[in-house]
Amino acid sequence: MHAFDAAIALAPQGAGDWQGHTSPAYANMIGPFGGVTAAQALNAVLQHPQRLGEPIAFTVNFAAALSDGAFLVQARAARTNRSTQHWVIDVRQGERTVLTATAVTALRRETWGASEMPMPQVAPPVDVPPPGRAASVQWVNRYEMRFIEGALPPAWDGAHRSSRTRLWVRDNPPRPLDFASLTALADVFFPRIWRRRATMTPIGTVSMTIYFHAGQAQLQAAGSGYLLGQAQAQAFRDGYFDQTAQLWNEAGDLLATSHQVVYYKE
Amino acid sequence: MHAFDAAIALAPQGAGDWQGHTSPAYANMIGPFGGVTAAQALNAVLQHPQRLGEPIAFTVNFAAALSDGAFLVQARAARTNRSTQHWVIDVRQGERTVLTATAVTALRRETWGASEMPMPQVAPPVDVPPPGRAASVQWVNRYEMRFIEGALPPAWDGAHRSSRTRLWVRDNPPRPLDFASLTALADVFFPRIWRRRATMTPIGTVSMTIYFHAGQAQLQAAGSGYLLGQAQAQAFRDGYFDQTAQLWNEAGDLLATSHQVVYYKE
Repeated sequence: MHAFDAAIALAPQGAGDWQGHTSPAYANMIGPFGGVTAAQALNAVLQHPQRLGEPIAFTVNFAAALSDGAFLVQARAARTNRSTQHWVIDVRQGERTVLTATAVTALRRETWGASEMPMPQVAPPVDVPPPGRAASVQWVNRYEMRFIEGALPPAWDGAHRSSRTRLWVRDNPPRPLDFASLTALADVFFPRIWRRRATMTPIGTVSMTIYFHAGQAQLQAAGSGYLLGQAQAQAFRDGYFDQTAQLWNEAGDLLATSHQVVYYKE
Repeated sequence: MHAFDAAIALAPQGAGDWQGHTSPAYANMIGPFGGVTAAQALNAVLQHPQRLGEPIAFTVNFAAALSDGAFLVQARAARTNRSTQHWVIDVRQGERTVLTATAVTALRRETWGASEMPMPQVAPPVDVPPPGRAASVQWVNRYEMRFIEGALPPAWDGAHRSSRTRLWVRDNPPRPLDFASLTALADVFFPRIWRRRATMTPIGTVSMTIYFHAGQAQLQAAGSGYLLGQAQAQAFRDGYFDQTAQLWNEAGDLLATSHQVVYYKE
């Protein structure tokens, strides 16, 4: 079993409740990697017997740092229409809410389509070297990241740079892409503020939204190939910055777009 | 009383419940303008006696078309931390949920800041002509929109164009900016698909997220001046497209960024 599947596994407790556990394989500096926490919350919808269609939009709000151990996920269909469904999700540890989320799922139909965010022209994954050594933070080792542009700053020297990052990325070891793994991959970018000003700043993601532009079949077709990820901040002000991100498959199809707002300390 | 204040007025029903009404002044082609519906939902948080701090992130999911008339807004603080608070909101008509939302509010502190999304160089509002005639859709008349680039296509002739729009915009008549009005302004852009392919396509916003980069004092300082709004789609595929948007004050400060995903029929 892949470490990601083990990490997002949920044990049904009846009535839309599931029990999950934080995963040491995806541990962050403090608590778990938020991308996997988000994937766990979405997984309660994905596994729900009343689910209609596939995820279109998913917003997750990180209300508190998760403690290592068990948590309860509750997913409730607040409204079911003919082709769309609205979900409200919360994650608790003990009596306290640690995460709130909403999801929209829908039956998708083939239509006219277009893209206005073409994949940047970059070197193929094989020509971009992977990192030379293992990371001290566990979750980072669960991803193969090949940085094209905007890696972690070479030194914490306070030099200012654009916050933009481009990288080829996939699960490590490779795993076929699905909605849960794409959710986690949308959070794979290290904090923009670290890149922006090369200063080690305490941060915490407050809220993240993902729009899924691809359906199940297109995710399956991407298999265990690389995704090109791009992320950049738009504004840093008074303790919060945002990040806007895109994820393309190797063929250049935009699979997901994502946004997040992140607390920073000073 | 300004039409916007009348539209978002809520009558307290106790225990975090408020009653509101749809507003004929902000009527859309079918049902109300979603921006005002979103502002009504946020207003339940803004007016809540237990609210901590100011809005940082707000996500609203449009679960069903609102019928003209009354609705009930329920806002609940799911988690209150030392400086952040997580809200879960729903709006009902009768027994049915028509909208779900989440909000994060927080006490903001002054920190280092920067912007990576400078305001585009455009002509000042006085040099951009306002629309020559009233719109048939009521809510459009509640905004003064001065299109710099990317107005509605001149004809529904199927010609393809970039979906990008830039405009100066403010309430009509002018009204001092606040979190509620900024929320509505984030939804002021007509559907990107209409611009993209000059084809009259039925659409409906499914989910919208707003990140507030400005606090109350900065919104007050903007007064009743114009905002520069910019919106563009990234992808149109299988019945859904996204929109990413920015709103700057006249001084060029990025006040809010916003994203939405929109259903389209074919």
